[in-house]
Amino acid sequence: MKLSELAEKTFSTIGQGSADLEITSAAGLDMAGGRDITFLANPKYTPQIMTTKAGAIFLNEGAAIDRDDIAVLRAKDAYLAYTRALREFNPPRGIEAFVHPTAVIDDSADVALDTEIYANVVIGKNCVIGRGVTIYPNATIYDGARIGPNSVIHSGVSIRENCEIGANCIVHNNSTIGSDGFGYAKDERARWVKIPQVGRVVLEDDVEIGANTAIDCASVGETRIKRGAKIDNLVQIGHSCTVDEDALICSQTGLAGSSVIGKRVILAGQVGIAGHLKVGDDAVLTAKSATSHDVEPGKVISGVPGFDNRDWLRSTAAYRKLGEMAQRLRAVEKKVREME
Amino acid sequence: MKLSELAEKTFSTIGQGSADLEITSAAGLDMAGGRDITFLANPKYTPQIMTTKAGAIFLNEGAAIDRDDIAVLRAKDAYLAYTRALREFNPPRGIEAFVHPTAVIDDSADVALDTEIYANVVIGKNCVIGRGVTIYPNATIYDGARIGPNSVIHSGVSIRENCEIGANCIVHNNSTIGSDGFGYAKDERARWVKIPQVGRVVLEDDVEIGANTAIDCASVGETRIKRGAKIDNLVQIGHSCTVDEDALICSQTGLAGSSVIGKRVILAGQVGIAGHLKVGDDAVLTAKSATSHDVEPGKVISGVPGFDNRDWLRSTAAYRKLGEMAQRLRAVEKKVREME
Amino acid sequence: MKLSELAEKTFSTIGQGSADLEITSAAGLDMAGGRDITFLANPKYTPQIMTTKAGAIFLNEGAAIDRDDIAVLRAKDAYLAYTRALREFNPPRGIEAFVHPTAVIDDSADVALDTEIYANVVIGKNCVIGRGVTIYPNATIYDGARIGPNSVIHSGVSIRENCEIGANCIVHNNSTIGSDGFGYAKDERARWVKIPQVGRVVLEDDVEIGANTAIDCASVGETRIKRGAKIDNLVQIGHSCTVDEDALICSQTGLAGSSVIGKRVILAGQVGIAGHLKVGDDAVLTAKSATSHDVEPGKVISGVPGFDNRDWLRSTAAYRKLGEMAQRLRAVEKKVREME
Repeated sequence: MKLSELAEKTFSTIGQGSADLEITSAAGLDMAGGRDITFLANPKYTPQIMTTKAGAIFLNEGAAIDRDDIAVLRAKDAYLAYTRALREFNPPRGIEAFVHPTAVIDDSADVALDTEIYANVVIGKNCVIGRGVTIYPNATIYDGARIGPNSVIHSGVSIRENCEIGANCIVHNNSTIGSDGFGYAKDERARWVKIPQVGRVVLEDDVEIGANTAIDCASVGETRIKRGAKIDNLVQIGHSCTVDEDALICSQTGLAGSSVIGKRVILAGQVGIAGHLKVGDDAVLTAKSATSHDVEPGKVISGVPGFDNRDWLRSTAAYRKLGEMAQRLRAVEKKVREME
Repeated sequence: MKLSELAEKTFSTIGQGSADLEITSAAGLDMAGGRDITFLANPKYTPQIMTTKAGAIFLNEGAAIDRDDIAVLRAKDAYLAYTRALREFNPPRGIEAFVHPTAVIDDSADVALDTEIYANVVIGKNCVIGRGVTIYPNATIYDGARIGPNSVIHSGVSIRENCEIGANCIVHNNSTIGSDGFGYAKDERARWVKIPQVGRVVLEDDVEIGANTAIDCASVGETRIKRGAKIDNLVQIGHSCTVDEDALICSQTGLAGSSVIGKRVILAGQVGIAGHLKVGDDAVLTAKSATSHDVEPGKVISGVPGFDNRDWLRSTAAYRKLGEMAQRLRAVEKKVREME
Repeated sequence: MKLSELAEKTFSTIGQGSADLEITSAAGLDMAGGRDITFLANPKYTPQIMTTKAGAIFLNEGAAIDRDDIAVLRAKDAYLAYTRALREFNPPRGIEAFVHPTAVIDDSADVALDTEIYANVVIGKNCVIGRGVTIYPNATIYDGARIGPNSVIHSGVSIRENCEIGANCIVHNNSTIGSDGFGYAKDERARWVKIPQVGRVVLEDDVEIGANTAIDCASVGETRIKRGAKIDNLVQIGHSCTVDEDALICSQTGLAGSSVIGKRVILAGQVGIAGHLKVGDDAVLTAKSATSHDVEPGKVISGVPGFDNRDWLRSTAAYRKLGEMAQRLRAVEKKVREME
């Protein structure tokens, strides 16, 4: 692709270099070669500009560069422009319509014609599989489940009874959508009585679910992951939770039941969210933090239990010397006693 | 179901309303409609009594109510009564005996007649599958495994060699029962030598295992989950652990090897239990806590490493101002130096 | 096996007992019987020497024993010698070459003759499966993947496009090798744009991966797990990470993207490693710790964020009394004010 065409497709402008330069791929600063375009987004990596072998680079408007032997595309957001370039160079492969003969599809299921149903896929009663869907081998779709157009279900995934997957979703390998919520009442003998879990899970459009993640159905009603939310590997979403639009939930984070995660919230890795609470829109919980209280919109929270991130940074700095602080407190107490 | 019949089946008594009222389902305060029964267990939700559209409500004996347009069933434990109502309205579906023609069952396996064996299930040599068992698609039962009566194995589950599942167990999707314990010795070249893991896992009766959970077999001997224990999604149980009766282990908690979890212990979400220790009966570890020491029966433990929950609450409150405390300590030290 | 032969095979020497004693198996101190050999490595278990029913025991050179009715094999490292004994008594079972008729293998795949391909395994286009490989039921090997000689892939595993597994590897059940990395750029409407993940995962030789673990492919390039590294259950390895030789990563630990874990590093359970950092050779992160900075070689790190383990032990001890410390600080401040 010519640099000029790439600029157009990534909403960027040529800062230096020939409009006719041929670019064939995109890669990071350290891996890019002469026909690749790379990017600088984090100023921390600025020194690598001098050593990269890339033929071109996306730079944020205003970012300086001290070389003239590399083509430059200027963008409002170099990372976004790079992402778009990478998408141009790696378009999704087209669908070959087929149903592998070993797939087991119930007669009552409604499977669109232009789908890819791989070997050993099992599709239950009354399922509805939309146009352009790919289901990889050994995935299991329980009775009554629905998968919207152009979604991709990877091998080993289980989609439980009556769950609904929207359009353009991706569910990675070995994830479980719609397993029973973890709910029990204690009986008179202090034994656990299982609370029926007869609800379902709904993924709206453009949702991506990582590998080996588990999303529980509601006891009654539904667990809902809204449009554009992205969930990483090994995440736990408890029954009756709502994850709102464009939220981002990183690996190994867990939500107990009935919590509501707001729009564009970011939960970093290994975060814990207790049950029945609300994390407001645009809030961020940093890695390994947890909350058992509501979080206000836009707040950045850290620690267990979580509190304001700036306070937490101060507390963690002091914590490193807490043993010494305890000693110093004893010393000053002693002096004061002596002075009395 | 008439209110009077429901009262009888849930060991409750009519506090107000007509014995002939028809109730057809059960749901939470916010979701229930006119033919539903709901419940109030946590006083925090008392205000919702005024707005619920439920036709009836379970209340604890003694709990006040300011409405007379809703039927009331009084119970010792409203949550337990509600659970029982939900179970009445959602009885387990009956078994249709079948073996799907694509299931691969070794000739030496002993499979009871009235089982449901779904498509692409694989059952190895000398397995024993009891009466009333359901095995969903794409599950794999390795050689020598046994599954007791009325248990349910969901799709994608793997049950490894010689493991034993009791009666009335449920294993949710993509969980692994009996993978190798994580054990190595370091050799003379500082390389890891694998310790053979030739033991097995035993789940006793009435055990439920969530989705994407991994329970390792013992190196020698067994890992045992005792009667009535409940384990959530994405939990790690290391080799040779024992989880005693009616213990409850929440999502993303991990047990290293050879630990013993007592009866009715509750491990909340994302808890960590080090190896070779004992958590006494009825102890509770709150979310995200960890222990590398034995825990006495009945104790409530928090933090990393865990200590008494009330002390921990005090410590976490002070921790939020630890940066300020460090400053104040410096200030008082300075004053004392000046006064000397 | 005679004691003399066992001594030879475990590089140990007879300390007491008859060279002709027959030993048939190996087990822990509490489980061993008269024909078993056991071991003592951790002095904490020394009292159990008096009560063990084992016929023989491995002891470190120099370790005392007060019984003469038990055979003793002396070794430099009793635990390693015991491991070797256990391996002698539990040799790997041999390969029976077969391809189950329900396995679905693309014509373009190159599968060695002496492999075990179990029921419902699916192997995609252009895959290469080496000699002596075992693939258990319901595993899925995507197009272009390669599996080296003598490796074992357990049921439910997914190996994604173009990933490469070395020789003598084991991948336990329901793990995912090569799922998409978790990478998005935010667009002008604050929606997430997926960054293509077109790299792959390489496991070098002698790598073992636990159950329900997820290892993401790189966006561009590769995620690499080097020779001899061992990874436990439910671990997250983000895109473009490198795990160096003989590293040990325990259960539920997570690595964000692009981090490098050095040789022989030990990451204990539930550890978190942020992105784009380096953990030096032989470093140790204790359970539940996390780091967002580089870790120097050989350091032992604890806490969130992690710092020197000895300082952390002091800080955690003081932390238990932090509420009281806050009170004492207030008291001493008051006294000083009064004295002024």
